[in-house]
Amino acid sequence: MKTALAQLNYHIGNIKYNTDKIINAINKAKAEKLDLIVFSELSICGYSPLDMLENEDFIIDCELAIKQIAKQTDGIAAIVGAPTINKNTKGKNLYNSAIFIANRKIIKTINKTLLPTYDIFDEYRHFEPNDIFEIVEYNNKKIAITICEDLWDEQRSFGNFSKEMLYKNSPLEYLSKFNPDFVVNISASPFSYNQADVRKEILVNNAKKYSTPILYINQTGANTDLIFDGGSLVINKNGQPIVEANYFDEDYKVIDLNFLNNIKTLPSDITNKYADIYSALVLGVRDYFKKSGFTKAVLGLSGGIDSALCLAIAVGALGSENVDVLLMPTAYSSSHSVDDAIDMALRCGVKYHVINIEKLRIEFETTLSDLFVGTKTGITEENIQARLRGSILMAFSNKFGHIVLNTSNKSEAAVGYSTMYGDMNGAISVIGDVYKTDVYKLSEYINKYIADIIPQNTIKKAPSAELRPDQKDNDSLPEYEILDKILYAYIESRLPFEEIVKIVGDKETVSFVLKLVNNSEYKRFQSPPILRISSKSFGFGRRMPIVAKF
Amino acid sequence: MKTALAQLNYHIGNIKYNTDKIINAINKAKAEKLDLIVFSELSICGYSPLDMLENEDFIIDCELAIKQIAKQTDGIAAIVGAPTINKNTKGKNLYNSAIFIANRKIIKTINKTLLPTYDIFDEYRHFEPNDIFEIVEYNNKKIAITICEDLWDEQRSFGNFSKEMLYKNSPLEYLSKFNPDFVVNISASPFSYNQADVRKEILVNNAKKYSTPILYINQTGANTDLIFDGGSLVINKNGQPIVEANYFDEDYKVIDLNFLNNIKTLPSDITNKYADIYSALVLGVRDYFKKSGFTKAVLGLSGGIDSALCLAIAVGALGSENVDVLLMPTAYSSSHSVDDAIDMALRCGVKYHVINIEKLRIEFETTLSDLFVGTKTGITEENIQARLRGSILMAFSNKFGHIVLNTSNKSEAAVGYSTMYGDMNGAISVIGDVYKTDVYKLSEYINKYIADIIPQNTIKKAPSAELRPDQKDNDSLPEYEILDKILYAYIESRLPFEEIVKIVGDKETVSFVLKLVNNSEYKRFQSPPILRISSKSFGFGRRMPIVAKF
Repeated sequence: MKTALAQLNYHIGNIKYNTDKIINAINKAKAEKLDLIVFSELSICGYSPLDMLENEDFIIDCELAIKQIAKQTDGIAAIVGAPTINKNTKGKNLYNSAIFIANRKIIKTINKTLLPTYDIFDEYRHFEPNDIFEIVEYNNKKIAITICEDLWDEQRSFGNFSKEMLYKNSPLEYLSKFNPDFVVNISASPFSYNQADVRKEILVNNAKKYSTPILYINQTGANTDLIFDGGSLVINKNGQPIVEANYFDEDYKVIDLNFLNNIKTLPSDITNKYADIYSALVLGVRDYFKKSGFTKAVLGLSGGIDSALCLAIAVGALGSENVDVLLMPTAYSSSHSVDDAIDMALRCGVKYHVINIEKLRIEFETTLSDLFVGTKTGITEENIQARLRGSILMAFSNKFGHIVLNTSNKSEAAVGYSTMYGDMNGAISVIGDVYKTDVYKLSEYINKYIADIIPQNTIKKAPSAELRPDQKDNDSLPEYEILDKILYAYIESRLPFEEIVKIVGDKETVSFVLKLVNNSEYKRFQSPPILRISSKSFGFGRRMPIVAKF
Repeated sequence: MKTALAQLNYHIGNIKYNTDKIINAINKAKAEKLDLIVFSELSICGYSPLDMLENEDFIIDCELAIKQIAKQTDGIAAIVGAPTINKNTKGKNLYNSAIFIANRKIIKTINKTLLPTYDIFDEYRHFEPNDIFEIVEYNNKKIAITICEDLWDEQRSFGNFSKEMLYKNSPLEYLSKFNPDFVVNISASPFSYNQADVRKEILVNNAKKYSTPILYINQTGANTDLIFDGGSLVINKNGQPIVEANYFDEDYKVIDLNFLNNIKTLPSDITNKYADIYSALVLGVRDYFKKSGFTKAVLGLSGGIDSALCLAIAVGALGSENVDVLLMPTAYSSSHSVDDAIDMALRCGVKYHVINIEKLRIEFETTLSDLFVGTKTGITEENIQARLRGSILMAFSNKFGHIVLNTSNKSEAAVGYSTMYGDMNGAISVIGDVYKTDVYKLSEYINKYIADIIPQNTIKKAPSAELRPDQKDNDSLPEYEILDKILYAYIESRLPFEEIVKIVGDKETVSFVLKLVNNSEYKRFQSPPILRISSKSFGFGRRMPIVAKF
C-alpha cells in the first residue's frame, strides 16, 4: 500500500488556497499511482481557525471543499482534516474530524476524542469529543485513524497536584482491539523547543506499546504566533523511525506500508535548540508577511543585541532588500550605539536611515513644560523617547507600507521593562519568547553557523536602554543569568515560590522578580502577538487576570 | 430556616481580602441567629482567576482560606465557592466547587457539572466536570446545591447548526429525584444587556419545572473587562420572585425558607437597557481603579460625543475631583471642538488642560521631512496627530499617576477606524462595547436621568475625527444607523452574509463592512481591555486568528 505523507503549509480561513494545495498533492499522488495520501489536522481550513468556527458560512465552505476534493479521488484514497457538523441533538456544534475519502466518495468520518484545552489550545470551545471508535478498512488493510492529541492519552496534567493523567480514556486502546495494520495520526502540533523530542518519544512509545506502525502527519508554517515545524514521521511496529519529513518546510514523502521492516531505520538525531529556534523564528516572520500579503519590514536598530538579532532573523526571512532599519538617536545615545547599529546594517546589507530625534524630544518636552513645571525628570522623559521612536516607526510604516517588527525579548516582557506604545510597538514580536540569555546564545549561533553578521561590540557591551545618561539594565534588574532562571521557573515550570527560592537561593530577589511579573500583566495584554518557541509563551497560551492581586 | 444571601464584590486573587469579607458576613449572620449564609461561585478567589489556577501556591491558599472560614461557623452553616483539588488519578487538576460548611466542619463539597467553555468562559481549561449527584441534608432540610451553569442545561448552542442543546445532561434532573426542599445556585454571572432578562427566565422556569424554590446568589463588581451585576434572587416553587438583591452593588438579604409562599411576590420589572449600561460602566471604571489601587484618571477630550460620554461615566465613577482632561488641538481642530470640550469640562467640574500640539506636530513632520520628501500627505500625517495625543496622555499619566481612559466606541473598534498607539491608548476602554448609535442614546439617558452635562453641540454635530480639514466620519464609513445594524448582525448575532444582506438590503455595503471588520483583527489584538456590556464584546470572548483570510 503506497502512501504519501503530505506535509503542507496552510493559510487559516483561506479555504480555496488550502483546497487547491490539497488537490495538487492528490494529483501528484495519482500520477505516481499511490494508494493513499494523508494530510494534516484541519488541513481544509488551517489550524486554528478559533472563533471563525462559529461562522456558518465558514463551515459550509469547508463542507463544499471536502466535496470538491472528493471528486479528485478516483483511484486513490485521501485522509483530510476538517471541522464537521455534529448531527446529534445535543452537544457542541462541531467535530474536529479526519475524513477518509476514496474513489470520489466519503467513506468514513473519524472524530477527535481528546480535545486539548490548555495553553494555546481551545478545542473544547468548539468541538464535541468523540466516543465511537471505528476502524477504516481499505485495500484489505485496517487503518486506525487518530487526530493529534488522541495519541497523547498518557499525558500528565500540569503541576504538583495529585493527577497522574489528564485524560480518562485512550482512543488507541479501543482501536487496537480491531488489530489495525497501521495507525494514522493527523496533527497540527506547534513547535516548542522544550517539546520537539517529547513528541517523537510519544509516537515511538505508542508504536511499541501496540506493536503497530504509526504514520504521523504534521503541518508546517506559521500562523501569527504559532509556528508548526512539520517533521512528519513513519515509525515501524518496533518503534523505529524509518521516514522523517523536513522540519520547518513543506515536504512530501512516499512509503510502501507493506515493507515497513525492510527499510533502514533513521539515526535518532539530537535536536539542536538554537538551530531549531532560528529556523522557527525565520519561518514565523516569513509566514506572517506572506500570509498577510506584505513583503517589507522596518525595525528600530539601537546598536544593542535585541534589535540586531531581530534584524538578522528578518533578513533571513525576508531578504535584505525587504528590510529597512531606523536609527533614532537622542543626546542620551552613546556614540558606539549609532556606530554599532550602522555596522550591523552594513553587514546585513539593509537600508538604514538615521533620524536624530533630539530636537523632537526637546519640542515634546517644551510642549509639556507649563504642565510639568516644577516636576522632576525621570521615567516620563525616558518613555517620551521610546514613544517618539515608536511613533516614527509607525509613520514610516504608514508612509511606505513596511510592517513594524517588535524587538522586545522575553525577559523584559516578563518584568515589564518596556514602554507601552513605544518599544512595545509592532505587528509581530520576533523574539518576545526568547529570554535575554538565549538572545546571546542565539546570536552566537547565527554568527557561527548562518553568517557572521552581528558585531562583537553589540554582543559584548553591557545591556542598556540608553534612555538616560549611563543607564544599565542591571541598575534596576538582577543580572540576566539570575533573572532568567527565576523567570523560567515561574513561567515555564510554574514552580511554587519556595521551590524557586531553592533554585536561586535569594528570597528577596525571587519575590522582587515575581512581583514585577505579576504587576505587568496590563502591559503584556496590549503586546503584539509573539512568535512562540517555548512551552509557555506570553499571549494566547497564558491567560492571566489584569486587575488582580496574588 | 433563616438564610442570608451574601452578594459581595470580590477581588481576584486577593484571597485574604475575600476571606475577611466572607468572615465578616458570617459574623453578621451569626449575630442575627441565622441558620445558613450563602456566598457566590469562586468567592474565595474571585471570578475568574484564569491561569492563576495553575499556580500551586494559589490553590493551597484557597484551601487554607476555607479552613479559616470553617472555624467561624459554630452554630451556622455557610456555602462558599472555591477551586478544590481533584483527587482522582485522571482528569483535570481541579473542580469548581461549592463547599458546605457547618459547625466548624466541611460537611460536603459539591462540584460543578456544566462547565461553560465559550465566549468569555474557559472553565474546561482548568476544571474537571462533576458526575456524582448528591444532596446536602441540614436542619432536616434537603438542599440541592448547584453552581451557575448547572441550571443552564437547556441552553441552545450558538448558530444555525443542527444542535438543540449545548449540554448532554441536567444536574437538576438528577438532584430532583432526592425531592430537595430548595435549590441553591451559586453564580458568577457577568452582566450583558442582552441577557439580564434571560437569566431571570431560566431561574423561574427551573423553579416551576421542578416545583422547588431556588436561591440564586450572584456576585457584584467588575474585574477588568467583566462586570457582574448581582441581582441575587429567591424564587418560590411557583416561579414567583419574592426577594431580589440590588443590581451593581453589594447586598445582603435575609429570608426564612419555611415561609416562602406567604411572602408577597415582587412585581416583574422591565430592564432599562441604558440605565443598566450606565450603571455597569460606572461600576466597571470604579472597580478597575479601586482594585488596581489607583484613584485618578485622565482622558483626551476632543469636543466629540465619545470622549464626552466617557468623561461623564468617569466622573460618575471616580468623582470630578479625580478626573483631568487634556484638550490637544492642532490646526485641523475646529474652533467649536475646543469650545465644546471646555464647556463639557466646566459642566463636569473637572480640571482641564489645553495643550496645543501644532508646533509639535510640525516638528514631528520636519524630523521626517528628508525621509518623506516627495510623498503625499495622508493617513500617515493623520495618525501622527493621534499618536502625539496618545503619547501626551501617557506622559501625563507617567508624570502624575493618572490612569489613561480609552474613549473609542465599538463601531470604530469594529471597522478599525482608529490609530494604534494613538487614540487606541488607555488602560481600560470605557465604551469599547457600545456602538455609536448607543453612544448617542446613552448620552441622552445621562442628560435626562443623571445630570444634564453633555453639551447639545456635542450631541448634535456630525461625527468627525478632525485629522484633516472638513473630515467627517461618513466620508469613509456608511451612516452609523446602517453600520451598526450590520455590525450587530455580524458580531453579536453571527449571521451568515446573505442573512445580513436581507436585513440591510445592500450587498456591497455589507461586504465592505465585513471586510473592514475582518481586516482589523490585528488592531483589536492590541486594544486595551474593554468593559463588557453585550453578549459579544471584543476581547477575551471573541477569539479570531490574525493572519487569516475568510
